[in-house]
Amino acid sequence: MAVGQNRFPLMPPISGVQIGTTNAGIKQTVRDDLLIFQFTGTCAGVFTQNAFCAAPVHLAKAHLTESPRWLLINSGNANAGTGEQGMRDAMKTCADLARFTDGKREQVLPFSTGVIGQPLPVEKIENSLPQAVANLIEDNWEKAAQAIMTTDTFPKGVSKTIVLDGETVTINGISKGAGMIQPNMATMLSFIATDAKISQPLLQNCLAMATELSFNRITVDGDTSTNDACIVMASGCSNAPEIVADSENYRIFAAAILDVSKTLAELIVRDGEGATKLMRIVVSEAANDAEAVQVAKTIAHSPLVKTAFFASDPNWGRILAAVGRAGVEKMELEKIRIYLDDVCIVREGGRANDYTEEAGQAVMNQAEIMIVVKLGRGDASQTVLTCDFSYDYVKINAEYRT
Amino acid sequence: MAVGQNRFPLMPPISGVQIGTTNAGIKQTVRDDLLIFQFTGTCAGVFTQNAFCAAPVHLAKAHLTESPRWLLINSGNANAGTGEQGMRDAMKTCADLARFTDGKREQVLPFSTGVIGQPLPVEKIENSLPQAVANLIEDNWEKAAQAIMTTDTFPKGVSKTIVLDGETVTINGISKGAGMIQPNMATMLSFIATDAKISQPLLQNCLAMATELSFNRITVDGDTSTNDACIVMASGCSNAPEIVADSENYRIFAAAILDVSKTLAELIVRDGEGATKLMRIVVSEAANDAEAVQVAKTIAHSPLVKTAFFASDPNWGRILAAVGRAGVEKMELEKIRIYLDDVCIVREGGRANDYTEEAGQAVMNQAEIMIVVKLGRGDASQTVLTCDFSYDYVKINAEYRT
Repeated sequence: MAVGQNRFPLMPPISGVQIGTTNAGIKQTVRDDLLIFQFTGTCAGVFTQNAFCAAPVHLAKAHLTESPRWLLINSGNANAGTGEQGMRDAMKTCADLARFTDGKREQVLPFSTGVIGQPLPVEKIENSLPQAVANLIEDNWEKAAQAIMTTDTFPKGVSKTIVLDGETVTINGISKGAGMIQPNMATMLSFIATDAKISQPLLQNCLAMATELSFNRITVDGDTSTNDACIVMASGCSNAPEIVADSENYRIFAAAILDVSKTLAELIVRDGEGATKLMRIVVSEAANDAEAVQVAKTIAHSPLVKTAFFASDPNWGRILAAVGRAGVEKMELEKIRIYLDDVCIVREGGRANDYTEEAGQAVMNQAEIMIVVKLGRGDASQTVLTCDFSYDYVKINAEYRT
Repeated sequence: MAVGQNRFPLMPPISGVQIGTTNAGIKQTVRDDLLIFQFTGTCAGVFTQNAFCAAPVHLAKAHLTESPRWLLINSGNANAGTGEQGMRDAMKTCADLARFTDGKREQVLPFSTGVIGQPLPVEKIENSLPQAVANLIEDNWEKAAQAIMTTDTFPKGVSKTIVLDGETVTINGISKGAGMIQPNMATMLSFIATDAKISQPLLQNCLAMATELSFNRITVDGDTSTNDACIVMASGCSNAPEIVADSENYRIFAAAILDVSKTLAELIVRDGEGATKLMRIVVSEAANDAEAVQVAKTIAHSPLVKTAFFASDPNWGRILAAVGRAGVEKMELEKIRIYLDDVCIVREGGRANDYTEEAGQAVMNQAEIMIVVKLGRGDASQTVLTCDFSYDYVKINAEYRT
């Protein structure tokens, strides 16, 4: 189940970025589960803030400063909660890939996603790496997106072009994730590549800003993964001049990276485990951004709100109760207005006078719904995306390991 | 569905506390939905901290200082999110009861529980009050517990006697609640009565301490209701001497009130919407109590943990991930130990060496499970009770209004 039509887009090759995938038998499905990116240029990354981040996250963070040339990604096993052995295993896969490509193991960033607490099958990975290396080609973005899926029901990708000084620059992004999604710095796994030329520090700034307003504004179940990571590679192979700080080109590029990140983040929510509805929660008239996010996330995490949306039930009392328990000081009920799309449901401390169940029901029957909460406290506004809570969420997560 | 055998206990009358119930047709079921307590002595109360507390909560708080003589409780309608009209309606029901009992409306504390955002059917209540008043008797605690049920599957009560200076003192308590349960000061609705003699300020202290360690340590779905309230009435009709501060009798009495509160709180979790399992989450070796509660509640609210327990799946990675995202500064993975009952599942940063899936599975197959997390940071310890997350939770909350 997923919300909306989510066809994989046409994704052109990115010059300087090669993709190789293969089936290493980690997931024991017919789908590829091993992915290599080989690239030139600069690379930036943001990672989970879960205190117990997985072994590959530790290593990827450390290797990020060593001019990386490869990303090595497996699905089916998270290599998290695996102690010292997990660190040794992650290190070994980097060393293996370096051996097969004549690189240095410090130039490999490893990523893993899947079940927590199982030893990484390092032999399977070692045995499959030569095939993945042999497959390297400047194409195959859809295959890459498929190779990183776990409980995802569709591969997630987006492509965008911008023009800098008359030269075309392309940005491609793929991501995966459907559960354990409340990214805190980045989502489960997202990989963005561009042929733009940009220094590492500037690319890192650009990514940090983009993730804050995209991946950090979505939630499926409030659970922050141990393995979240978002990486952007910039090969510098386009004909456009290098992007420098405080330039018009930087603004165009940063806006495009944000746009790509937002699209990838939204695709994750659309594929939220068991999702039947996409909810955009807009909290406006807040005293500041933090307060707006706090109220929006309290609504987004409420199981009562999420099950009401699953039932297409305009049970606005649950939204109001969630706003009330969000922990914002001195909130005044009389100033709050709540809308479902453009239907006002709450005003002056209670149900809006002109509200009808029919009008509320009409909005609730849609697959995509905007919840607007106006706090009457200031002019800050933030949006959080989430999905509903269905029988299938319980089913998927009750049966995940069996 | 509910966890364990939950037979209603024998509850003796409390001298000086009368109970009257009737069917006012608010819920449109055969069960009584209107309850009056008439009592002498002192009375203390704690209320929800949801910023948008319901009209009756506002009024009950205001009337608590006016030597209350009656509690007026209806189920089926929360009178919350009802604006000015809601305040007028709550006031009218107090005035009506005062009229039928020759009391003052300020001596009536009103309580409502049920659907949010619907106008309170004041005529139905006015028409039924004479019957409820006529029914007043020093007995019928089970009827009282039944009259306040909403999505509860069984009535919840507990009775306890203590001996003070050779004289028996009885404490009875009833409660209701199954969803929208993460009480913040008190649970949905709990009413405790005793024939002890104790001043109002001392009774209030006693209740505040008890709720902090009982109702404020349970959660079903993380949603704090707009209507939570817990009231204790002390008629002073027993032969025991008045309980004074800092006395041995006060310590015995306070321990008994805490005991009654803990039992009522646990009954609410056992009847958590769709619950099939009761989880006691004990976080020990924390730097302080707040940190222990924070970690315990993060585990208790994780949909991934709750669905794994529903599936009897010893998916300890989800518990570890929840501990990691609890927001505790400088937590060290290597120091953490996690147990299911007495089976160690996590030690030294990963799965315990001697852990077997069989041992974990054996614990998970139980209906009541203790999760122990030792943080290795200090000597504070706190316990939070919660239940699992099942298909029936979604079903109950998707269909509640239909």
